[in-house]
Amino acid sequence: MTSASAPDTPEHPSAIDPDIKAGNLTRLRRIEGQIRGLHRMVDEDRYCPEILVQISSVQEALRAVSREVMRNHLAHCAADAQARGGEAAEAMRDELLELMYRYLR
Amino acid sequence: MTSASAPDTPEHPSAIDPDIKAGNLTRLRRIEGQIRGLHRMVDEDRYCPEILVQISSVQEALRAVSREVMRNHLAHCAADAQARGGEAAEAMRDELLELMYRYLR
Amino acid sequence: MTSASAPDTPEHPSAIDPDIKAGNLTRLRRIEGQIRGLHRMVDEDRYCPEILVQISSVQEALRAVSREVMRNHLAHCAADAQARGGEAAEAMRDELLELMYRYLR
Amino acid sequence: MTSASAPDTPEHPSAIDPDIKAGNLTRLRRIEGQIRGLHRMVDEDRYCPEILVQISSVQEALRAVSREVMRNHLAHCAADAQARGGEAAEAMRDELLELMYRYLR
Repeated sequence: MTSASAPDTPEHPSAIDPDIKAGNLTRLRRIEGQIRGLHRMVDEDRYCPEILVQISSVQEALRAVSREVMRNHLAHCAADAQARGGEAAEAMRDELLELMYRYLR
Repeated sequence: MTSASAPDTPEHPSAIDPDIKAGNLTRLRRIEGQIRGLHRMVDEDRYCPEILVQISSVQEALRAVSREVMRNHLAHCAADAQARGGEAAEAMRDELLELMYRYLR
Repeated sequence: MTSASAPDTPEHPSAIDPDIKAGNLTRLRRIEGQIRGLHRMVDEDRYCPEILVQISSVQEALRAVSREVMRNHLAHCAADAQARGGEAAEAMRDELLELMYRYLR
Repeated sequence: MTSASAPDTPEHPSAIDPDIKAGNLTRLRRIEGQIRGLHRMVDEDRYCPEILVQISSVQEALRAVSREVMRNHLAHCAADAQARGGEAAEAMRDELLELMYRYLR
């Protein structure tokens, strides 16, 4: 989308599925609204368990974004590396395991 | 902060620790910025694993808010119910278990 | 149950609900069988996703034990500390938060 | 290892890494011992938080088994499906996403 990424924001080396991208941009806008809603709930001294349930709902929404990013990653980036084989494939699998077991929550 | 909560936004039945509240409002502002950062990363076609690691960092930040809300809940709401004893105490413990095992992430 | 705990196995300072205890002993026997089943699945070269789903089912079973231990803890140990008030109550709440946010899975 | 799997225990369609298999069999034996240790702790009325921390440690050990099963899956089964391409590759990616986001904990 942006053609002028700063040097510290490398563009994606593989294809991005436009539907996944559009869906995630929409999801993130909605999540931004949910965060503002949480801010309001805290500000209004709402009952703690209500806030906790709402935090959990934002976390689920972020998980849905994560799942779609991972879907794109498997279909494009991971598939490319797998096709190149050898060390590229092995490094990709190590990265995948690290993502799954360290960062997925 | 707001003195006129709408009927559908019941105020908190117990005390709110002002430091916990202020800390959480700050945290949520920062998280709102992180969500906008994520939106930008997706828009700029950043590398999927970078996005996934960033989502994980937002999840951790939300967990920190949740932990402080729970701290307040235990010190005030849960303690009040415990002091009343009997069914109030038991209902509070059931609610706590449900929060911990169904909503904590 | 055991009257001669070794010095490194301090007995429980508060009451244990006998139904919770009996239920957990039964659950743990069943989980031991599930672990042996997993050993057999790995030994028989079963399809990886089947093994992963079975591991997830054991994790859920352990969570059910954890939930019952926590139920006992809230009803007895945590309630005792809460009743004593002051530093005892505060230390108990810190311990609870640590258990919830560091050890609950 | 077993040459005569029952009909309801289909053997693995792809290669199994012998080191991963041996490591996992050892891990599962150790986990079986940990479960018996937990049974003993419950039987001896040990302090609830000690039991909860120990449950968490068993869950981490199961996660290590899961990670190695997933490593084998990515290197063999998933790589095979990816190489076949088309619907096989897509079905494999859907299965992977389901495993990651529904069963990983």
